[in-house]
Amino acid sequence: MTAIGAERYRELLSRRAARGSRANYGGIAPTYQLGSGKPDPASFPKHELVVAMADVMEIEGDDALTYGALYGWDGLRDLVVHKYNVLEGLKLERDNVLLTNGSNDAIGLIIQAFVDEGDPIICEAPTFMATIGAFRRQGADLLGIELDDEGLRTDLVAERLAALREAGRRCKLIYTIPTFQNPAGPTMSERRRRHLVKLAREYEVMILEDDAYAELRYDGQPQPSMYSLDDAGFVVRTGTVSKILGAGFRLGWVIAPPMLLGYLSAFNFGGGISPLASRICAYYLKDHLEPHIRELIDIYRAKRDSMLEALQQGLGDTDAAWSRPEGGFFIWVKLPSGTDPQRVSELADAASVGYVSGTMCMPNGGGEDHIRLAFSYDQPEQLREGTRLLCEAIKQAGVGVSSGTTF
Amino acid sequence: MTAIGAERYRELLSRRAARGSRANYGGIAPTYQLGSGKPDPASFPKHELVVAMADVMEIEGDDALTYGALYGWDGLRDLVVHKYNVLEGLKLERDNVLLTNGSNDAIGLIIQAFVDEGDPIICEAPTFMATIGAFRRQGADLLGIELDDEGLRTDLVAERLAALREAGRRCKLIYTIPTFQNPAGPTMSERRRRHLVKLAREYEVMILEDDAYAELRYDGQPQPSMYSLDDAGFVVRTGTVSKILGAGFRLGWVIAPPMLLGYLSAFNFGGGISPLASRICAYYLKDHLEPHIRELIDIYRAKRDSMLEALQQGLGDTDAAWSRPEGGFFIWVKLPSGTDPQRVSELADAASVGYVSGTMCMPNGGGEDHIRLAFSYDQPEQLREGTRLLCEAIKQAGVGVSSGTTF
Repeated sequence: MTAIGAERYRELLSRRAARGSRANYGGIAPTYQLGSGKPDPASFPKHELVVAMADVMEIEGDDALTYGALYGWDGLRDLVVHKYNVLEGLKLERDNVLLTNGSNDAIGLIIQAFVDEGDPIICEAPTFMATIGAFRRQGADLLGIELDDEGLRTDLVAERLAALREAGRRCKLIYTIPTFQNPAGPTMSERRRRHLVKLAREYEVMILEDDAYAELRYDGQPQPSMYSLDDAGFVVRTGTVSKILGAGFRLGWVIAPPMLLGYLSAFNFGGGISPLASRICAYYLKDHLEPHIRELIDIYRAKRDSMLEALQQGLGDTDAAWSRPEGGFFIWVKLPSGTDPQRVSELADAASVGYVSGTMCMPNGGGEDHIRLAFSYDQPEQLREGTRLLCEAIKQAGVGVSSGTTF
Repeated sequence: MTAIGAERYRELLSRRAARGSRANYGGIAPTYQLGSGKPDPASFPKHELVVAMADVMEIEGDDALTYGALYGWDGLRDLVVHKYNVLEGLKLERDNVLLTNGSNDAIGLIIQAFVDEGDPIICEAPTFMATIGAFRRQGADLLGIELDDEGLRTDLVAERLAALREAGRRCKLIYTIPTFQNPAGPTMSERRRRHLVKLAREYEVMILEDDAYAELRYDGQPQPSMYSLDDAGFVVRTGTVSKILGAGFRLGWVIAPPMLLGYLSAFNFGGGISPLASRICAYYLKDHLEPHIRELIDIYRAKRDSMLEALQQGLGDTDAAWSRPEGGFFIWVKLPSGTDPQRVSELADAASVGYVSGTMCMPNGGGEDHIRLAFSYDQPEQLREGTRLLCEAIKQAGVGVSSGTTF
């Protein structure tokens, strides 16, 4: 077979496609999986999901196995509404909810609906790595703004928006993860949230509020969502089943003003979200939502605390620093001064410990001195051991700079 | 709430989004559903799918409920390979298969990977309505070419390609449904298939072979797929679980040269296809694929014949004409001369019979004198009655032109 080569395809590909291809995840998972934010497998209610499947087949198998509504099955849309209204006191209606193929798909639809090539986009630095890739594919000009303990520095956002306006550039979207920020950890204060919503209104910018972990708060006081603070329709918010039940369903959603749903859905070229997966999920959650979330909170709080303890044991005698998130799945670690990040990577690989390099999370470069750790997947004993091994690797990768030196 | 209005959003939307929003399907389904190509609900193996779910949870529940590989679960990719290799004698490997959210999603990924705004695209006229919408969203310049009993008129394709080259315009994609063409019905002859593949090579154009119904042949001889006739990597082929098991899984695929999968997958902003739905589907099909397809062929052949008979009874005394497809779900009806299509619509609506207007299937206008009927969904008695009622409506909508008049 004399197949045409890569060069030829490149000539045939669309401009967006020419930005690169996406490799299949695969290969052997490391023994200690501190990398991606996978949910705890021990929490999966497998038996109950078989019961849910049997009920779905008996009660509405015909509808579960055929084409569904483009915006998703109303039963699950209603459950999402119920979740927010009960847990957060929102006043959503079904028409605020578009179901998507997980939260990343929701973010992808929003990016496609609002971002053209070359558009300036404000986001946090660091931010969620998958989203950086999605923005880049769309050709966005990502402008990362730093965070502190109160979350995104909205004063710097204001400056940037003013500067962009001055330069005649229209910023149409601000991407933020205000709660248990991924990867840095802080939760944005209410003061900052109100400031950002005010800026959105003033500059007429959409805010994409990525809120995949909203339900998983282990301590501290909840902050109002940006969505709830906005009364002008500038905030769209995303959420997911992945962290509160299982990522294998590929179910997420956008909460948005109703008139926007059609613009977002139009970028879903397929026939909407699985009516089958939606029903299995909803049949389980309708009876178990709140107790299941309470159970998950207990599981993940203990895991977070285990990892924090292991970090203290492993790196407490260095100038390393790490976040203490009130929820979510991640801890953001600043490596001790003088650590060689490449050497950490090699040693961790040898010890079969996975983690995410800080560089992956930076929209405009940098991040070599940070790593992101997930405490969500591994079981407690493995989590402690993996963290211990990683701390050892980090220490071995020190290049002998005396403690206290700063860059 | 003083939400911003549609005007404001339009200013914020991307250029592609501004091409329009997509309404949620919904409302009350008609009593007689001769419109969309939904699979036969009586064929759904509900009990066996519960068994499959129980096996999945027991054997690999942890993997089914977490994130999966971006190109889809290898077990289902292998099953797709097996299906084609056993049923058609192809020599596919796993690396030829990208799983997608149904066949429409596969088509959407291909469109995004190869089509830029303004690109000329050759397709059949009539063609699949959902695909017309996807091409339009991408800003393609759709150029419909007519069909005859041998399928797409490849002589006209050759002329068009030459004219485009002459005009300095690069055509990068030809979209065809060569087998049981939707909606018109013909299956492209091998001679034409070879011609089209030759043209693709000569002009360096990709062929998108939409083959959602390949397995459902009720009579006649199979033709080799375009994919199997191409040895130069210019053909990508799409398929789906929707018609051979159930559309509620939202599972389809692209068969393509391996190096293209990454370019296609990159437009799937979410985390790939549901690992759960993939496994339920594959666990069922691995034991039942061939007998289930045989059963479906018997079901749909009988339904096709029922509808053909009902059309003969209802319109046999007019100059209406209709296709006799050897497979697939649709019959393409040319209305009797002088029929008022608007009146048909009103009368069918009053009788609660759904169908698809031919205008929906035309990429460049026209089609008022045709309708597309699906025989797949309704049960036999209902199918006959729906067809009978529709034929009555069509006759009542005649505007009194004497038989034999042509437009």
